[in-house]
Amino acid sequence: MRKILQGLVATLLASAGSALPAMAQEQPLLQTPDQIVVAAPAADWVRIAPSDLMVMDLAPDAAGRPRRVVIQLVPAPFSQGWVENIRRLVSEHWYDGIAVVRVQDNYVVQWGDPDGEVPEKAKPLPEGLNVVPESEYATTVKGVEALIRPGANGTSERGTLLTKTGKRSVTFLSTDHDAYANVTGFVDGWPFAYGVSNEQGLFPTHGFAWPVHCYGMVGVGRNVSPDTGTGAELYAVIGHAPRQLDRNIALVGRVIAGIEHLSSLPRGTGELSFYETPEERTPIVSVRMGDDVSGLPAYAYLSTESASFAAYADKRANRKDAFYIQPAGGVDVCNVPVPIRAVKP
Amino acid sequence: MRKILQGLVATLLASAGSALPAMAQEQPLLQTPDQIVVAAPAADWVRIAPSDLMVMDLAPDAAGRPRRVVIQLVPAPFSQGWVENIRRLVSEHWYDGIAVVRVQDNYVVQWGDPDGEVPEKAKPLPEGLNVVPESEYATTVKGVEALIRPGANGTSERGTLLTKTGKRSVTFLSTDHDAYANVTGFVDGWPFAYGVSNEQGLFPTHGFAWPVHCYGMVGVGRNVSPDTGTGAELYAVIGHAPRQLDRNIALVGRVIAGIEHLSSLPRGTGELSFYETPEERTPIVSVRMGDDVSGLPAYAYLSTESASFAAYADKRANRKDAFYIQPAGGVDVCNVPVPIRAVKP
Repeated sequence: MRKILQGLVATLLASAGSALPAMAQEQPLLQTPDQIVVAAPAADWVRIAPSDLMVMDLAPDAAGRPRRVVIQLVPAPFSQGWVENIRRLVSEHWYDGIAVVRVQDNYVVQWGDPDGEVPEKAKPLPEGLNVVPESEYATTVKGVEALIRPGANGTSERGTLLTKTGKRSVTFLSTDHDAYANVTGFVDGWPFAYGVSNEQGLFPTHGFAWPVHCYGMVGVGRNVSPDTGTGAELYAVIGHAPRQLDRNIALVGRVIAGIEHLSSLPRGTGELSFYETPEERTPIVSVRMGDDVSGLPAYAYLSTESASFAAYADKRANRKDAFYIQPAGGVDVCNVPVPIRAVKP
Repeated sequence: MRKILQGLVATLLASAGSALPAMAQEQPLLQTPDQIVVAAPAADWVRIAPSDLMVMDLAPDAAGRPRRVVIQLVPAPFSQGWVENIRRLVSEHWYDGIAVVRVQDNYVVQWGDPDGEVPEKAKPLPEGLNVVPESEYATTVKGVEALIRPGANGTSERGTLLTKTGKRSVTFLSTDHDAYANVTGFVDGWPFAYGVSNEQGLFPTHGFAWPVHCYGMVGVGRNVSPDTGTGAELYAVIGHAPRQLDRNIALVGRVIAGIEHLSSLPRGTGELSFYETPEERTPIVSVRMGDDVSGLPAYAYLSTESASFAAYADKRANRKDAFYIQPAGGVDVCNVPVPIRAVKP
């Protein structure tokens, strides 16, 4: 058999008689996170509105193959001031003709106006874009409630956040094991962190929640503080989660398809890995919202409030099957990618 | 000024008058991790023996440019059974002519004999390679001692591990904030995790230590357990740290130069992101140990026992400068890459 880093499904099914974790004993075929996702009922999948998708078409590659990147914009209560700017920039086709200008290994791919910092050459921005304050990097949470409904392996539990956009159901990962926040988890299909600015410990009466810099997340390039950026220059994370950027920069979305067209680009050799010559840049032909693109697949995410997601998160933290002999017993929020798939329109 | 994700040095120096963290107040020019590394005295840099380096030359790229990847092998007490096999495979030039066969986005690049699983076509392996047991995925630690010498911001502390190869000085990151282990830190320039197989809590009298799957770490491809692999098929991590692999697979080294030649390769489209056609593979022309390669730069790592490294780790956890307004207050072990640089031979 070919050497692999993960047991093949066929192998796992064949080994159903071997020592299995609690959940798999109940459902012998669901030994791996992928198997749990495949077995999730249709009702557990949430359609993503095409109007929340940015479709970014890069110039074709050297072999003439199309390169399409699909980005989902983050929902309220997160980063909506920047998201409004981005929607306007798309509607005015402002991004058409800009380029990927920076690729730093194990960090980010960044795109924008290559002449953006040369006043006489810069592409004019629409007037009246929101100037968003740094306070919007996180959202205030008035209350937190943990329902303490552990998942199959106790890795996750259900709870609620009282945010400015109402009460949000969330799935928390086991607390007290994140280096950057009091609590991490998932709300409306997105990874988030929760914390307080002082030492109130876990589940304080109020605090802040913010989206986290996991692989594939999209943020707003900016100059030094207090500038928070307009949204005209964006980046995507292509390495180990740079969580130090959390609450220091605006996260506005995530790549849900085609990230390989960004992550496999040649790395820049200039300062901060910017490209040194125009020839190195990858042109961005057009950016449109999903409801303006004909033939776009429908996308859906696995509800992070579903039992399927809880079982998936628990399995990500406790692999034990024909390949894994030592369950980790835990997992970090960026190592639980929310399953997203294309579905029949 | 060009929009960036990190403040430029010039900007930071210009802002030395702004609010600074404790350490920067003492040394106003050392506001960023990079500045601390640049300012580290020569005595804090440890030369890496060329005999511990694997130099892997891939076929030139489409433009004819050379693609060299330099891998440092992990020292005792970790994974030496596999490391011995790899040294022998290099000495017999066994790796020459194999290829990169798999590239999975946000996971791994894997190389080996493309025909390795076809008995009549497979490249014969040398006889007498070590067959290493699963117990070698981690090393037994007889004792742990924390000296409790906090770094500048209290993020790190010095300590010792009593291993089978003697007492090792280590730098621990702040404990109790890793999802996968009781303690994480750095030993002899390498990231490691420490834990126990039961709930003895932190700093138990004995337990296990193991290298961790951070970006750039190199491991041994294998079939399903209890096979642990020979070292003839290897992979490098090119995404968010897949810590679930810790203690389930052998880590034998890390890429210290040229990882962009692996991480920017086209992603595979077959099962588990293996390439589907031979044409997609990147040939490996030769692999030699560093002391057999003329003109190889000398490499050195920042001693993880040095005050410079402690300050660097603390700054990775507590960025506050012209760009960062909100120090994270913590950092995970894979977000503290050990500084490694080429130095004059």
